[in-house]
Amino acid sequence: MATSPTAGEFELIARYFAPLARSQPFAYGLSDDVAWLRPAADCDLVLTADAMVAGVHFLADDPPDLVARKLLRVNLSDLAAKGARPLGYLMTTAWPRDIAEDWIAGFAAGLAQDQQEFDVALLGGDTVATDGPMHLSLTAVGEVPRGQHLRRGGGRPGDLVFVSGTIGDGALGLLAAKGGLRGLAQAERAFLADRYRLPRPRLALGAAVRQLASAGMDVSDGLVADLGHICEVSGVSAELWAGAVPLSPAAAAAIAREPGLRALTLTGGDDYELVFTIPADAAAGLAKQGRRLGVAVSQVGHLASGQGVRVIGADGRPLALERAGYRHF
Amino acid sequence: MATSPTAGEFELIARYFAPLARSQPFAYGLSDDVAWLRPAADCDLVLTADAMVAGVHFLADDPPDLVARKLLRVNLSDLAAKGARPLGYLMTTAWPRDIAEDWIAGFAAGLAQDQQEFDVALLGGDTVATDGPMHLSLTAVGEVPRGQHLRRGGGRPGDLVFVSGTIGDGALGLLAAKGGLRGLAQAERAFLADRYRLPRPRLALGAAVRQLASAGMDVSDGLVADLGHICEVSGVSAELWAGAVPLSPAAAAAIAREPGLRALTLTGGDDYELVFTIPADAAAGLAKQGRRLGVAVSQVGHLASGQGVRVIGADGRPLALERAGYRHF
Repeated sequence: MATSPTAGEFELIARYFAPLARSQPFAYGLSDDVAWLRPAADCDLVLTADAMVAGVHFLADDPPDLVARKLLRVNLSDLAAKGARPLGYLMTTAWPRDIAEDWIAGFAAGLAQDQQEFDVALLGGDTVATDGPMHLSLTAVGEVPRGQHLRRGGGRPGDLVFVSGTIGDGALGLLAAKGGLRGLAQAERAFLADRYRLPRPRLALGAAVRQLASAGMDVSDGLVADLGHICEVSGVSAELWAGAVPLSPAAAAAIAREPGLRALTLTGGDDYELVFTIPADAAAGLAKQGRRLGVAVSQVGHLASGQGVRVIGADGRPLALERAGYRHF
Repeated sequence: MATSPTAGEFELIARYFAPLARSQPFAYGLSDDVAWLRPAADCDLVLTADAMVAGVHFLADDPPDLVARKLLRVNLSDLAAKGARPLGYLMTTAWPRDIAEDWIAGFAAGLAQDQQEFDVALLGGDTVATDGPMHLSLTAVGEVPRGQHLRRGGGRPGDLVFVSGTIGDGALGLLAAKGGLRGLAQAERAFLADRYRLPRPRLALGAAVRQLASAGMDVSDGLVADLGHICEVSGVSAELWAGAVPLSPAAAAAIAREPGLRALTLTGGDDYELVFTIPADAAAGLAKQGRRLGVAVSQVGHLASGQGVRVIGADGRPLALERAGYRHF
C-alpha cells in the first residue's frame, strides 16, 4: 500500500482479491506486501507489464469480467510470444471513488475464471483510489526452459513470416463494440466484438514454436507495426503480402462491404495473435505443430536485408498505408 | 504496449526509458515486451507492486525526479522489509496528454540516479496516455537466500517490537510540503518535507535482521496500522508505547508546538522505516547490527496473546486514536 488506504479499500481487498491469491501458498493470501517465488531450477523467469485505462484501452460500459480477463490476457499474450508458461501476476488498480461494488465483484469474478483457465494466481499488488478514469496495471510472471525464450531480434534475411489465427478482428471488433459495422449480420458483429474484448493468448502455440522460430511477438499494436518491431530489432526488412493475411469470415464480410477496412486489419491492434519468423527449412515442422494444436498458421511474407516493412497489395504493387503511430514505414 | 501507441510514445520510450534498461542485458534495452531473469540458484525471488496517483500519493508540483525516486523507493522499501536484495523493476506509466517533455526527462533522470544508488535496472513496462491524473505503477523484483525472507505472520506473544529510524516524519512532512507547520524553522520544515518526498528504504537493515526477526514490514500506512497488520496475520496482539516511539528533532519540535500532532506520528503513513518483532533473546544481536549499520533501532512495545494494537500513552493509560482507515483498533 503506498499511502493511507481507507477501511473500505482493505475490505475490498479482503473480500474480492484475497480469495484470488488463496490457492497460491507463496502469495500468503495477499496478507503480505510481497510475494515470493521459487522458479524451477532449469527455467528462466519472464516478466511483462501492461496498463489499461478506461476510455482508452477498454470502453466504460464493457462488462467488468471481460475487462479483467482482457487485462490478464494481454499480458499472457506477451508471455505466449516468448513461449513461456504463466505462473502468476501482480496487479495494481486505481478505482474511481464512486465505483459500484458490483463492478469490482464482476471484475474479480472474471479474474477467478481466467485463473482457472490459465492456471495462474494473484501474487500481490496495490489498490488505490483516483479522481480520474480507472487505471489497471498488471505484471505477469512466467517461466521458460533456460535459454529458450523467443526473442524479437533473431530474424534473418530469407526467414519466412507467419501469423497465427486471423488478423484484423481486434480493430474491426472495436468498431463493432462501438456500434459500428451495422451492415454486418448480428452474429458477425458479436464475433468481432468478442475478439476485441477477449483475447486468446496463444500459449500452446508459443511454446510449440519456441525452438522453431527465429523471432516472434504478439500482434497488439497492429501487424505492420509489430512486424516492424521485429525488423528493427533484428536489423532486417520484411515484405508483407496483404492478400495472404488470413481473415475471419466476419472480417472478410466487413471488407467485402467496405474495402477501405482492409488497411485497418493490417494496422489496427488488439489481435493478440502471434507473428513470428522461421528459417525456411522449419516450415514443415511448423505446419505439423499447427495441425497438432488445431491453430491455423499462415505465411504472410518473408524477411530480407535492409530495413522497414514493405506491404504488397493483392495486385503485386506496394501498398501505401497512411496511419499515424508507426515509425519507419 | 497494450493498444495503438502513437509515434510520440515510441519516441518517449526510446529517448528516456530505453537508456535506463541498457545496463541490464536481460531486458534487451526495452526492445522487447518481455524481460527475462535468471535468479541465483540458492535464492527465492520476491515481488511487490505499488501504484501512485498524482494528487493522492504525490503533489502535482513535486519535482519529477523526486516523484520517480519515491515510486521506486516505496517498492524497494517493501523488499527491504523482507530482507531482499533488489534486482530490477517493471513500470507502467499513464501520462496526461499535455505533459511537458521536461517533466518526463526529470522523471527519467530521477530513476537513473536511484538505479545507480540501489544497483537496479528497468526491466520492462508500458507507456500509455490518460485524460485523467498521472498514474504510475511499479513492480519491483528482488532476491533473498532461499527460505529466509521475513514474513508478517511469524510474531509470537512475548516478542519485542522494534522500529528503525524515526517515526512520523512522513505524515508531518506531507503537512510541511503543503505549506503547513509554519511555526517551525525553515530547516525543520525542509527536513520533514524531504522525508515525505524521498523515502530511504532500509535495505541493509532488512537484510541484517532477516534471521533475527520473527515478523516485519515497512511503515507505509502508519505505525499503528502496520503493526496491526503484523498482529492480524500473526494472530497476536501488541502493546505500543507512544512515549517510546522515536522522533526526529524536527518532529519533536512540531509536537512541542502542537501536541495534537503526536497522534498523527502514530497513524500517519509514508515513513518507510521498518517495524519488526524479535524474540527477547535476540535483542542484543539486533542492537549490534544497528550499531554496525549506523541505524537507530528502538523498542516501542511487545506482542501478547489476543488481538489488536493497544496504544499506551506517556502517562501509562491507553490512548484512544481516532482516525478513519484502520480496522481492529
